[in-house]
Amino acid sequence: MPDFNPVSLITAKRDGKTLSPAQIHWLVGAYTRGDVPDYQISAFLMAAFLRGLDEAETAALTDAMLHSGEVLDLSATPGIKVDKHSTGGVGDKVSLILAPVVAACGVSVPMISGRGLGHSGGTLDKLEAIPGLRTDLTTAEYKAQLDRLGVVMIGQTDEIAPADRKFYALRDVTGTVEFIPFIAASIMSKKLAEGIDALVLDVKCGRGAFMKTEADARKLAETLVAIGEQAGKPTMAWLTDMNAPLGRAVGNWPEVEESIRCLRGDDVPDLMTVTLALAGEMLHLGGVVASPEEGRQQAQAAIDDGKAFEKFVELVEAQGGDAAVLHAPERREGAVPAGEVRATEDAAGYVATLDALALGYAAVDMGAGRRRKEDEVDPTAGLVLNKKPGEPVQAGDLLARLYTKKTDHVESFTKAVQQAFTYTDTPPMLPEMLMDRYTTAGWANRP
Amino acid sequence: MPDFNPVSLITAKRDGKTLSPAQIHWLVGAYTRGDVPDYQISAFLMAAFLRGLDEAETAALTDAMLHSGEVLDLSATPGIKVDKHSTGGVGDKVSLILAPVVAACGVSVPMISGRGLGHSGGTLDKLEAIPGLRTDLTTAEYKAQLDRLGVVMIGQTDEIAPADRKFYALRDVTGTVEFIPFIAASIMSKKLAEGIDALVLDVKCGRGAFMKTEADARKLAETLVAIGEQAGKPTMAWLTDMNAPLGRAVGNWPEVEESIRCLRGDDVPDLMTVTLALAGEMLHLGGVVASPEEGRQQAQAAIDDGKAFEKFVELVEAQGGDAAVLHAPERREGAVPAGEVRATEDAAGYVATLDALALGYAAVDMGAGRRRKEDEVDPTAGLVLNKKPGEPVQAGDLLARLYTKKTDHVESFTKAVQQAFTYTDTPPMLPEMLMDRYTTAGWANRP
Repeated sequence: MPDFNPVSLITAKRDGKTLSPAQIHWLVGAYTRGDVPDYQISAFLMAAFLRGLDEAETAALTDAMLHSGEVLDLSATPGIKVDKHSTGGVGDKVSLILAPVVAACGVSVPMISGRGLGHSGGTLDKLEAIPGLRTDLTTAEYKAQLDRLGVVMIGQTDEIAPADRKFYALRDVTGTVEFIPFIAASIMSKKLAEGIDALVLDVKCGRGAFMKTEADARKLAETLVAIGEQAGKPTMAWLTDMNAPLGRAVGNWPEVEESIRCLRGDDVPDLMTVTLALAGEMLHLGGVVASPEEGRQQAQAAIDDGKAFEKFVELVEAQGGDAAVLHAPERREGAVPAGEVRATEDAAGYVATLDALALGYAAVDMGAGRRRKEDEVDPTAGLVLNKKPGEPVQAGDLLARLYTKKTDHVESFTKAVQQAFTYTDTPPMLPEMLMDRYTTAGWANRP
Repeated sequence: MPDFNPVSLITAKRDGKTLSPAQIHWLVGAYTRGDVPDYQISAFLMAAFLRGLDEAETAALTDAMLHSGEVLDLSATPGIKVDKHSTGGVGDKVSLILAPVVAACGVSVPMISGRGLGHSGGTLDKLEAIPGLRTDLTTAEYKAQLDRLGVVMIGQTDEIAPADRKFYALRDVTGTVEFIPFIAASIMSKKLAEGIDALVLDVKCGRGAFMKTEADARKLAETLVAIGEQAGKPTMAWLTDMNAPLGRAVGNWPEVEESIRCLRGDDVPDLMTVTLALAGEMLHLGGVVASPEEGRQQAQAAIDDGKAFEKFVELVEAQGGDAAVLHAPERREGAVPAGEVRATEDAAGYVATLDALALGYAAVDMGAGRRRKEDEVDPTAGLVLNKKPGEPVQAGDLLARLYTKKTDHVESFTKAVQQAFTYTDTPPMLPEMLMDRYTTAGWANRP
């Protein structure tokens, strides 16, 4: 590989020039090896943030980060392996339901997930709220379980995309996080390292999402799909609403419990609308159905006939989890309500909006998440909503139940949850959960 | 002082916001103390480079760097202390002539100078080409000599503006050097630390200057003057031409020798035009004459009556230098010509242009300067031009004499010098040396 001068690459980007794939590969490699120091990369990151990276540069960045570590080879497992990635939201337990549903329909799902940080939860923390469940499988265990069950859910290993971790840590302290090409490269370098053949994306948009505006969310979806396709993996994205929490539970164990109920047939409308749409796409990309709609129907059938829940039980058992709690979730130790939140005096008529971001942070404060990476999470902490937007409400009605060990702070948690609600006296217009669908053919709902 | 979050300051600048003086002071202080790491400052530098710093931010940056170290107090020395700063060029030995001239006319000149780096020389290296001369005086020696002689010329101590050194080193490796607010803050923080009362600036413009375009040079002059005035020090700037070398000598000892001749009354027109104009301004700001023009005449008179040369001899002796070489410069050891450069076949008529940048680098290669900070300089290396733009020339005429210990490379030095010349068969238009004059009242020659 040719040797470049880091200052020349920084000044080229500073002056708005486009870097070649070879230059980007060199820079990522030299940084990962420690040959280029943090202070030069941070200048480069800021120059890129302000001058932009085009599609080819973003693809090269992704590819360089992807190949900075281990890229799993699942070619020994037959069939098309499909995963889903969500850009993160509040109450987003979709993966817990989706993975067993899709596997039950015959498409293999190798899923590597992250932990929660900030207001948004992480699938890994949710899985670990199931007593005994291991997410640190070896590569051999990961492959063997995928072969045997068609589904495996683990955490990212140190061997996957180490450059991404190094870049992310630096972005975090240099004001260069909120930049779509970096966000997209970070997501896709990790997903492509899983050994998948195709990918479905759930790009969330709204006050509880990282992308607050529809324009940014659309741009991110387009960038992610372009990277996936450029890497030769069929990729599509749904743009979904994340203004209110998805479903009624927020917090690790509360969300597992809600997922179990959904897998056993309960309909939580917003949550299941998103889950079944994504399942339909995965089954379609997985080649077992002719259309996403047919996939959605098969997914619903796998829930109705109990196969999806059965697959979830197998998954939990295979990874060492206590399957008994799946059958009687109410008996899990520690899941005791610490308080009830009631509607304030101004509540009359209907819930108008529910601030997912505020509820996400309230759950973090109750112990369900991390403000900083090194924080510990309380698996049972969180809240379960009794009222959601569009539902009738009167002063004094139960809004939510709180689960926390920080019983001294229940009053402030209660206030935070109350303040997340707004009311209206006429039935409000609710946002569409499925805002738009993006494939290489373009947006479905945009002219 | 309030405590700020470095990431907030980086993102504010990234988003085009203006930082307060308190924020800039905090950032500079925290960086100098080591509380904020290089990688955050380099992101800030790039954000500032691309988003800009306004006049108040630049003044705050200067002030913070100035007060990061020792600020000399010369108030015990009577009168108005005036210094000159040049933004650097090729053959720019003005300070060597100017300082004794101005001191001989009764205005004290406390001068702290730098070393050469890249194509441009440094006054300190030139002074040290005088055998025995010390530039590392203590603060007490500096003050005492200024009191006694009215002139002192030393190098920057470690105590002066340490923040500037730290910022400069980081800018150098992060592609953030060529940014006028940083350049101006770096210059002015060091100059204001000298304890001066007023400052005259020689902002050079052209192919041998750091500012290649007139627009950039004007902007730099305006920024420097604004900072000086904001610090309460009357400041003005001349914009001068730096396309061809100033005078005929390039290199440390060759330039000292040319300076001695000028101090003894030789007229080197371009060099003396600039020197006398700056001297006139210094005497005017120093309050001993009613106008810069009267100052220029007094400066010329101090040369004509021998007082300026006498002052230079006193200065050299006071700093331990061998005054004998001032009286018989040709006898200095080592100053032996190593080659003669003759005009090529295409020379006919007149010298049209002479590339100062190419000659500057040729002199560096001969040993007169540094490509990197740690390089040693050869005090006698350099070249003396026999032809300058506008002068008649024919093929085979002597263009320059070379002085170098690298006698194996004389052929390539010869070629480099030859290539720096262009010719014309009609007398060329020569650029005005004094391009324009800037004070708080604005530019003299710009509508």
